[in-house]
Amino acid sequence: MAMNRVLPEAGGEGGPGDPGNQRGRAELVPRLGYSGEDIAARRRWVEEKTGAALGQVGASMLPGEALRGNVENPIGAAQVPLGVAGPLLIAGGHARGTFYVPLATTEGALVRSYERGAAALTRAGGATVHLYADENRVAPVFLFDGVAEAAEFVNRLPEWFEVLKAEAESTTRHGKLLRLEPRPLGREVMVHFCYSTGDAHGMNMIVKATDRACQWLVANTAARRHLIFSGLEGEKRAAGSLFAGGKGKKVVAGARLPARVCRAFLHATPEQMADVWRHTMLGHVQGGTLGYNGHYANGLTALFIACGQDVANVANSAVGVTTFEVTEEGDLYATATLPSLTMATVGGGTGLGTARECLEMLGCVGAGQAPKLAEIAAALVLAGDLSMGAAIASGEFVQAHEEYGRNRPAEGGA
Amino acid sequence: MAMNRVLPEAGGEGGPGDPGNQRGRAELVPRLGYSGEDIAARRRWVEEKTGAALGQVGASMLPGEALRGNVENPIGAAQVPLGVAGPLLIAGGHARGTFYVPLATTEGALVRSYERGAAALTRAGGATVHLYADENRVAPVFLFDGVAEAAEFVNRLPEWFEVLKAEAESTTRHGKLLRLEPRPLGREVMVHFCYSTGDAHGMNMIVKATDRACQWLVANTAARRHLIFSGLEGEKRAAGSLFAGGKGKKVVAGARLPARVCRAFLHATPEQMADVWRHTMLGHVQGGTLGYNGHYANGLTALFIACGQDVANVANSAVGVTTFEVTEEGDLYATATLPSLTMATVGGGTGLGTARECLEMLGCVGAGQAPKLAEIAAALVLAGDLSMGAAIASGEFVQAHEEYGRNRPAEGGA
Amino acid sequence: MAMNRVLPEAGGEGGPGDPGNQRGRAELVPRLGYSGEDIAARRRWVEEKTGAALGQVGASMLPGEALRGNVENPIGAAQVPLGVAGPLLIAGGHARGTFYVPLATTEGALVRSYERGAAALTRAGGATVHLYADENRVAPVFLFDGVAEAAEFVNRLPEWFEVLKAEAESTTRHGKLLRLEPRPLGREVMVHFCYSTGDAHGMNMIVKATDRACQWLVANTAARRHLIFSGLEGEKRAAGSLFAGGKGKKVVAGARLPARVCRAFLHATPEQMADVWRHTMLGHVQGGTLGYNGHYANGLTALFIACGQDVANVANSAVGVTTFEVTEEGDLYATATLPSLTMATVGGGTGLGTARECLEMLGCVGAGQAPKLAEIAAALVLAGDLSMGAAIASGEFVQAHEEYGRNRPAEGGA
Amino acid sequence: MAMNRVLPEAGGEGGPGDPGNQRGRAELVPRLGYSGEDIAARRRWVEEKTGAALGQVGASMLPGEALRGNVENPIGAAQVPLGVAGPLLIAGGHARGTFYVPLATTEGALVRSYERGAAALTRAGGATVHLYADENRVAPVFLFDGVAEAAEFVNRLPEWFEVLKAEAESTTRHGKLLRLEPRPLGREVMVHFCYSTGDAHGMNMIVKATDRACQWLVANTAARRHLIFSGLEGEKRAAGSLFAGGKGKKVVAGARLPARVCRAFLHATPEQMADVWRHTMLGHVQGGTLGYNGHYANGLTALFIACGQDVANVANSAVGVTTFEVTEEGDLYATATLPSLTMATVGGGTGLGTARECLEMLGCVGAGQAPKLAEIAAALVLAGDLSMGAAIASGEFVQAHEEYGRNRPAEGGA
Repeated sequence: MAMNRVLPEAGGEGGPGDPGNQRGRAELVPRLGYSGEDIAARRRWVEEKTGAALGQVGASMLPGEALRGNVENPIGAAQVPLGVAGPLLIAGGHARGTFYVPLATTEGALVRSYERGAAALTRAGGATVHLYADENRVAPVFLFDGVAEAAEFVNRLPEWFEVLKAEAESTTRHGKLLRLEPRPLGREVMVHFCYSTGDAHGMNMIVKATDRACQWLVANTAARRHLIFSGLEGEKRAAGSLFAGGKGKKVVAGARLPARVCRAFLHATPEQMADVWRHTMLGHVQGGTLGYNGHYANGLTALFIACGQDVANVANSAVGVTTFEVTEEGDLYATATLPSLTMATVGGGTGLGTARECLEMLGCVGAGQAPKLAEIAAALVLAGDLSMGAAIASGEFVQAHEEYGRNRPAEGGA
Repeated sequence: MAMNRVLPEAGGEGGPGDPGNQRGRAELVPRLGYSGEDIAARRRWVEEKTGAALGQVGASMLPGEALRGNVENPIGAAQVPLGVAGPLLIAGGHARGTFYVPLATTEGALVRSYERGAAALTRAGGATVHLYADENRVAPVFLFDGVAEAAEFVNRLPEWFEVLKAEAESTTRHGKLLRLEPRPLGREVMVHFCYSTGDAHGMNMIVKATDRACQWLVANTAARRHLIFSGLEGEKRAAGSLFAGGKGKKVVAGARLPARVCRAFLHATPEQMADVWRHTMLGHVQGGTLGYNGHYANGLTALFIACGQDVANVANSAVGVTTFEVTEEGDLYATATLPSLTMATVGGGTGLGTARECLEMLGCVGAGQAPKLAEIAAALVLAGDLSMGAAIASGEFVQAHEEYGRNRPAEGGA
Repeated sequence: MAMNRVLPEAGGEGGPGDPGNQRGRAELVPRLGYSGEDIAARRRWVEEKTGAALGQVGASMLPGEALRGNVENPIGAAQVPLGVAGPLLIAGGHARGTFYVPLATTEGALVRSYERGAAALTRAGGATVHLYADENRVAPVFLFDGVAEAAEFVNRLPEWFEVLKAEAESTTRHGKLLRLEPRPLGREVMVHFCYSTGDAHGMNMIVKATDRACQWLVANTAARRHLIFSGLEGEKRAAGSLFAGGKGKKVVAGARLPARVCRAFLHATPEQMADVWRHTMLGHVQGGTLGYNGHYANGLTALFIACGQDVANVANSAVGVTTFEVTEEGDLYATATLPSLTMATVGGGTGLGTARECLEMLGCVGAGQAPKLAEIAAALVLAGDLSMGAAIASGEFVQAHEEYGRNRPAEGGA
Repeated sequence: MAMNRVLPEAGGEGGPGDPGNQRGRAELVPRLGYSGEDIAARRRWVEEKTGAALGQVGASMLPGEALRGNVENPIGAAQVPLGVAGPLLIAGGHARGTFYVPLATTEGALVRSYERGAAALTRAGGATVHLYADENRVAPVFLFDGVAEAAEFVNRLPEWFEVLKAEAESTTRHGKLLRLEPRPLGREVMVHFCYSTGDAHGMNMIVKATDRACQWLVANTAARRHLIFSGLEGEKRAAGSLFAGGKGKKVVAGARLPARVCRAFLHATPEQMADVWRHTMLGHVQGGTLGYNGHYANGLTALFIACGQDVANVANSAVGVTTFEVTEEGDLYATATLPSLTMATVGGGTGLGTARECLEMLGCVGAGQAPKLAEIAAALVLAGDLSMGAAIASGEFVQAHEEYGRNRPAEGGA
């Protein structure tokens, strides 16, 4: 039965000398379903194979059937500590008001740091946020016999837009093909297929749509074949081309913080904040960092885990730029620009148990709420970078992690 | 009492026109502790403020006191679906044998994809893995009056190594200062303080140690002041300089897959795999990606969440390079190189409930196990990139996500 | 008189302790004109100040008045050895036929290497070349009070296109404003002003045009001020964003080289060439190189010096990608993609003495010839990368530089 | 005879359908020598083939035999207008005093711009310059059967250092192998062979030396073969890894400019200069530029052409970082950092006619002078970036190019 499936042979190999022949041990995970019993049986199988006791993994509140489409071979759930940072006052196009933001993390001091920045922003009148664009894209590559054929393809691509749009959109109710951006290289042509995807993250949706359009192109043009991904699109990776937008939501948050708010909440003057910006920018430049920011990855990761986002998209979402500037009046103007923020409020893990509850905390459940969620995220990382910059400026970074971090008790010399 | 703390004034402001005056709403999160009652009270306060019902968030198995040092303002836990991928046969310096890897994700098809790659690797005889280096670093910047003073500092830095080592190590039992790497720029000097950190991730540890050493330098040299972070170190960000190593663990995994194993498990020939590599490399180059890989971020994120790692470190850990090559014998040789993998088996979230159980599944609980965990991660992402590359080569990517992904039922035309 | 002008005081300083007071020595170069006498007098002044004998510098064939607009404080000309590489057979949209390419260089073996690649291309039937785009751009930055004002500016920019086009084009007969591409960041907005510039390089032209348009924007919108350069445009610097095009000419050259041509002319098989591509690509990736190519900078620099181009533009022009691929028939398909090639046939140094003669060698003198010149350049660097790749593949690199390079006689052990 | 050599067949092809059969036209450049007669005959052949009259090309002062080792197929010389910028006061470790710098360019206003910056630096007391390192390197790649063999190679490499040093240095009197830096990737290992090269640029020297060492490694270790270049070394290309040093000379120039000097010479305040730095830094970051500078490529290219340097090395040399900072006293502190400056005073074109004269202007002829030349270059680009930054700050950029540039007369509306 399903409980003892060994790894199949690859045909033709085998025998005593076969280095891959691990027949005795290499069993496949049992092919069981999503019922509570199946999950429990699978978990017991894993416990037996690995010797681990998985009691807490098994104590998940997530009903098994709800996991279908989100995970295979389920054995329960991982639990990540959840804190809350706020108040965070936002004046955005979609997010307006005061928010308390759920953050799932195990890094001591992280929530406290974001809370401090949020409080400073709030006392300063809140963060202004603007969502510039909300798209997603796939970039297949088409292969040609030579440079001439590739060039003709690029030149004629606009002619085919309507039929490609029809092909692509025949596979989806929500994805809309906005435009094509060809990027020829040698005798191949990568093409950005740019979509609006509604409130879903939509990669599966637009990959399927694009593949349909690609099939039309391979059948009707000089393209000999295609690969559905070229890597150009920047999905789940840090890439310089993300700054031009088109991969997710482009959002900018900014705020003017009076000097007294800086000092009172951040323990740093606007001049000190600008000084930190200047010197750490040089570190980013010398290190070959894409963009510049204090720790977008921290805030985004904690928010993504809490809210059922695809956390691997932090790789592209955290590429962005923070600015600190002293205004003519002596205040601090601080901004966060995220050109490629990938967030959703429907699909993926957004409907699951704790994720849905966290989205409720933000008033971001369901259709129509993704822009609001993106604006909250931008204000959040602005708060975090204010707090981080201030900790560096004031020299309080070490102290803060001493107070809140895990390592303190176990560390220290005699 | 603590339940109704309003955001404090910043001193001197206030009055009707103060744009930051949100006195009526902007309450701070109550300062409560880590007892179950405190967490419940805080959660109820959040429910009241936001209108969200947080029942599942509150159903955490993580005892409150255990969260101290990992999260502030705790209200419970986020749950992330947990699946298992394997068997994954590894011949490493530290990880040896067959593993079943816990993956926390909400992306349908992800576990199945890694499972497929793991099975192929296993049938091929397993992945060979080598851990080249295991370090961590902090890069403070020192500011000088001019270029001449900066130059003298750099030239004399070796003289001060022993005293700096003593200063730094006076703050920690586990961190060992290995060397200093100065990087002058203009009239400032960034210095990599490079440490071994034992089995801990160790950022807090080495930041504290480095700050102590910096204080000595500011007191005893021409350095006027320092900032504890310059950004050069590459912590939680993607940066080109990570390839040179020094930030976390440098690990390489590789395997020779006989052509028949490729075809049987991956539905692609070695030649097709090399073809995908070649064409998607061009997409990465044209897109300005750091490094090249299929989707390290996916596997690492899922493993990091499962195992209580600092998930924001995926930003640096996922910078790496995959290779697919056809051997002279017609087989596939595939490798994954991760120059900056940040993983730990003590400290951080590694001791918490489900995280500890997931580490048990891998035999990686506690001191001495971080190298083993890093080798498993490297083999895992190699498995994932094999499967992703094969899905692109064979054209099965869309089909796989149709079968396992969440979006299918809600999508589709008539 | 003009021959003894000392460096002026900066007002208010002076006196014995002034570290900048080099009154005794710091004379300015005499303000003389462009006549032969003036140039000779200036040169003698330099000879006197520096002790150098500048006889060959003074033996320039370039008549002095012709230098006005190309150089200030002229004292003669530098001479760079000029060789010729060919035949180079090209089938382009603009360049068609066999070319002998002038290359100004002092690197032994360079001309021989390009000649070898050109011969191979020619024997293979020539290089196919396609010019995708021919533009130039300036990217000023506009500063705003806050994020909201910046966002409104971006949103309304399309409304202003016609008036901006009229303003910009009022300053030039040749530059045509094609489109505006805004790139907001924080509370500022960079805008690519994209032009066609006819056959001129056109930076001065479009900078002036853009500045006029910027003045209109500062006068009529919420933009508080502007800086004419933000650095985003990629002028004379290597930048990842150049791959998307818009800075100069985007050109692709490609050729199919039969295996026997590879072996006979390049001493390498197609498989060896693909092997070199694969391994050196990994070196580029690990080194954080922008793009990938063997040595575009060599060929472009030599051609730019010969043909009176702005040689500093090699910094952006040499960012590109070479591919070597074995075809299904066992031949080599090789390509060179230059997304940002900056070349001109009018203006700059293109009309001067030897430069004009070199352009005549290529049939590229005067208006209408810049696309042809760009196509020749693309075929040239393809030739150079074929030869370089082959030298690495065959192990002949050292031998070639031994035979042709300067260093051999002076080097070597006992 | 040599004057009519047709392109040889590639063996086995030919016949009417051969697309590469250009037998009628595709003649090779005649194989003639370096005597004046040979050069003239070759030039006449080119004139005949191309229809160009090459009188000025032929008027070279460079004696033919002197070109051997610097160029093949010589037909004369290209002439580039030469101006002079100064006074430039430098307080370096090697360059000390006031310099007048030869610049070969055809860009109007360039010399004037560098002259202005040089005068400002001089009035401010000069530029302080420090040379941090002076090395060159080659990075071959070694190929192995698998990851395990590659790892063992890396681990044992230190054992072999002495024998490799002996092998490498057996081929050269000047190159000294300093250290080896292995960079494993998958199953291959790139190794930086780092040398001091005396006053020569030394690439040919160290490539030959390295190749010898590689042969020993291939003969005596598990390395199956090697390629002499991996691309990792960053020769003649822009690469992020150049910031870590090791490719050429690492030089830093800096100066404190009193506010009154800024205003008098640059027409900008220190605050305006810092403002330009801040905003143009953001443009560089958003554009994905390596490093940050105003126009190092301009000054370096003009200096390299004048002084017989390998001009293609500007591609790596121009990667660097400029800083402008307001000091506590209200002055400007400006710096230029060039991590990878490739300059020489012996070998290459340094001994040729005008090049040697230009080196004489700087007191940099012959052995022992390369560090001095590098320091002058660093001060020069600092001068240029001061002037460029000031032109942007003051809005005078357009005006300056109107006054000095070539395009003015031909441009302009009614």
